[in-house]
Amino acid sequence: MLKGKHLIDPMDFTTDEIEEIFKLADQIISCQREFAHICDGKLLATLFYEPSTRTRFSFEAAMLRLGGQVIGFSEPNSSSVSKGESVADTIKTVGCYADIAVMRHPKEGAPKVASMYSEMPVINAGDGGHQHPTQTLTDLLTIRSAKGRLNDLTIGCCGDLKFGRTVHSLIKALSRYENNKLVLISPSELKVPDYIKKEILEKNNIEFIEVEKLEDVIDKVDILYMTRVQRERFFNEDDYIRLRDRYILDKEKMNKASEEMIVLHPLPRVNEISCEVDDDPRAYYFKQAKYGMYVRMALIAKLLGVK
Amino acid sequence: MLKGKHLIDPMDFTTDEIEEIFKLADQIISCQREFAHICDGKLLATLFYEPSTRTRFSFEAAMLRLGGQVIGFSEPNSSSVSKGESVADTIKTVGCYADIAVMRHPKEGAPKVASMYSEMPVINAGDGGHQHPTQTLTDLLTIRSAKGRLNDLTIGCCGDLKFGRTVHSLIKALSRYENNKLVLISPSELKVPDYIKKEILEKNNIEFIEVEKLEDVIDKVDILYMTRVQRERFFNEDDYIRLRDRYILDKEKMNKASEEMIVLHPLPRVNEISCEVDDDPRAYYFKQAKYGMYVRMALIAKLLGVK
Amino acid sequence: MLKGKHLIDPMDFTTDEIEEIFKLADQIISCQREFAHICDGKLLATLFYEPSTRTRFSFEAAMLRLGGQVIGFSEPNSSSVSKGESVADTIKTVGCYADIAVMRHPKEGAPKVASMYSEMPVINAGDGGHQHPTQTLTDLLTIRSAKGRLNDLTIGCCGDLKFGRTVHSLIKALSRYENNKLVLISPSELKVPDYIKKEILEKNNIEFIEVEKLEDVIDKVDILYMTRVQRERFFNEDDYIRLRDRYILDKEKMNKASEEMIVLHPLPRVNEISCEVDDDPRAYYFKQAKYGMYVRMALIAKLLGVK
Repeated sequence: MLKGKHLIDPMDFTTDEIEEIFKLADQIISCQREFAHICDGKLLATLFYEPSTRTRFSFEAAMLRLGGQVIGFSEPNSSSVSKGESVADTIKTVGCYADIAVMRHPKEGAPKVASMYSEMPVINAGDGGHQHPTQTLTDLLTIRSAKGRLNDLTIGCCGDLKFGRTVHSLIKALSRYENNKLVLISPSELKVPDYIKKEILEKNNIEFIEVEKLEDVIDKVDILYMTRVQRERFFNEDDYIRLRDRYILDKEKMNKASEEMIVLHPLPRVNEISCEVDDDPRAYYFKQAKYGMYVRMALIAKLLGVK
Repeated sequence: MLKGKHLIDPMDFTTDEIEEIFKLADQIISCQREFAHICDGKLLATLFYEPSTRTRFSFEAAMLRLGGQVIGFSEPNSSSVSKGESVADTIKTVGCYADIAVMRHPKEGAPKVASMYSEMPVINAGDGGHQHPTQTLTDLLTIRSAKGRLNDLTIGCCGDLKFGRTVHSLIKALSRYENNKLVLISPSELKVPDYIKKEILEKNNIEFIEVEKLEDVIDKVDILYMTRVQRERFFNEDDYIRLRDRYILDKEKMNKASEEMIVLHPLPRVNEISCEVDDDPRAYYFKQAKYGMYVRMALIAKLLGVK
Repeated sequence: MLKGKHLIDPMDFTTDEIEEIFKLADQIISCQREFAHICDGKLLATLFYEPSTRTRFSFEAAMLRLGGQVIGFSEPNSSSVSKGESVADTIKTVGCYADIAVMRHPKEGAPKVASMYSEMPVINAGDGGHQHPTQTLTDLLTIRSAKGRLNDLTIGCCGDLKFGRTVHSLIKALSRYENNKLVLISPSELKVPDYIKKEILEKNNIEFIEVEKLEDVIDKVDILYMTRVQRERFFNEDDYIRLRDRYILDKEKMNKASEEMIVLHPLPRVNEISCEVDDDPRAYYFKQAKYGMYVRMALIAKLLGVK
């Protein structure tokens, strides 16, 4: 039973609980109309202390497509947080108006604190560089929908594997399913941190290799997860430009990949994936955004206990 | 009949009209579901020329929970007020789209001007340090729900009684009911202004005392209304810190109070009330926020004439 | 069939297609209730990269009054456009959540680019000083409703005819209907550009005169379209003040006009029209705002193919 629970860390739910959400997402995808009113009379509060249009739109669209309604703010300036109120008081007050809340916050741990004082479910929509659990659910549902399974897969992760929050969460999540293999593709400066290798990969006996060149391994992966190399991670512009351009996915590289491979990206992309790839049927990153909405519909319904 | 009226000043409505709103609020509280569609097809415009998340959320949740819909802005920057349009023109244009409007404005009197040019009802949601009538309705409904009456009460008001808009309005409102007594608790620098004593309290023969120490009188009040001591009211930081801390309500003080006393606060609090008090059943300030939504539901329904 | 089309340029639709929209608008005006649910389950995204409360409110009210729902942002700061995403990627992602989008953008051509990559209909709600097609539809519907026709009319356009985007679009639109005459009233510094005279008026054999004084011609027009003289168009403040005040419409000038003349203005006005004119039954500018909402209701319904 997920009713009344919070979702703060991608690992908060068991694989069984996640499967429960995915099964509901499947049903919603196959017949959205049937679910158009299951949240009638319910109210979602979107508390974005940091702007994130994409994530906010996805949650709001999810709630509205279930028949629910939305109140919220999209940046701290348009809210009255400046009056010095604690996160605890804010969530308790918002709980007087809404039935479920989504919080994005620049400070790590803020959604966790909120959940500790909240009588309604709180969903973490990103806290600093920390956690973004609904992105992980999105990634998993996309893989599951494309491949029919979450085990026995070879997943390539490409780009900034050092700071990339979404990749770390995805690696942790995939480590819970059987017989997955990881191909970690990054410049040496941006390799996966040691604690992930030791505490996640080795502990769970996950086979993995680390390489520098995307071309060398693209034919071996079932899934290629591309990530943005963020300008703000670098000390100087030269390093940024040199590294950013090294991993651009283009038609030439795609020609070497399997016909069944799919390409994922959490979006927004800058130029890690060339636009010429967009029309390739293996380009799944916009479909992924759509799965993001569906998985949030399922999640909201489950936490509210209406399904 | 309240249909089509504006609410600008807390004293705009007679006690009979206020009772009419409260009776509807009672019905909504006892069976919210019955009212879930009474505003179907109606549109509320929230015009916040100054951010106030709490108040805006309360109004928006109220309208959405009645089946209505909301358009609005939450701060002047995201609106086109910079183009030099008058409040009169703005409200006339918004009246083309919406059925009822809520306005918060940094300039005293702006909602009044809007109401003079508006064909739809206008609700003042705070104009500068001036009026905030739905806060007063919230306070009254909370007292009435907790105590079963608005007369024969001893009300303690504590904190900044000089500049506190909500306290002034509450004193005026309570002066219209029989046999209420006031205990005014504040540092001498922040006492209730003379005009309130003369024109409201003495004129209406309201018994009152002024004291400096909360501990001395906490056992004598039925209601303790705490207010925030705002930093911006002081010339220097030292005065602020000294006075702010003097009136903190904590467990020790609560132990001296009656079992039937209730504590109110308009929120947000900074530290006027210690968090250790939150779990005390006499702590009513979060319930008060909930009553705020219910009273706005009733108010909107009455002004639109749908109930 | 307008289903699935975009509206980027006021001339994108044929006069037949426009008539189709107007006929639906007529039906909506005569019985709004019948259309209160035709967009149930549909989602409009309002993407305002530049604030414009009036236009945004009009679109949002239109969608909500058809039973649809809205997600959106009202200024670029509260969105994540700063992450360097292309308009193409943004519209493709938003298309995962919404069924139709409205875009306002400071850069000319941005909505056009968006429409090229979008699978859902895109409506241009203003791109820089370029196009604002729903304002033109609003103007035409207002004239058609007041006069019963869009041909055989003498239309006076007064104010800034050089930079005024709305006037240029209106002139182009009216040139497609038979036997209209134009009276162009402006200071010599702000006359209609030559390309409009040559490529629109002369090419379509539209009779027109250019005058400097409003008083001289006000009795000859069926419609007087007033426009704002924008401060930002002038190099110095003196020129602005001198020219702005020259064309103020007041009671005295109205006395010289026909009883059947109507006054339009795209709003917001500053002081081009004296407030004393507002109560004149010929003052149509607030009604025009209302027609703006109706025409957007009809447009949304047509592009979505629900009517």
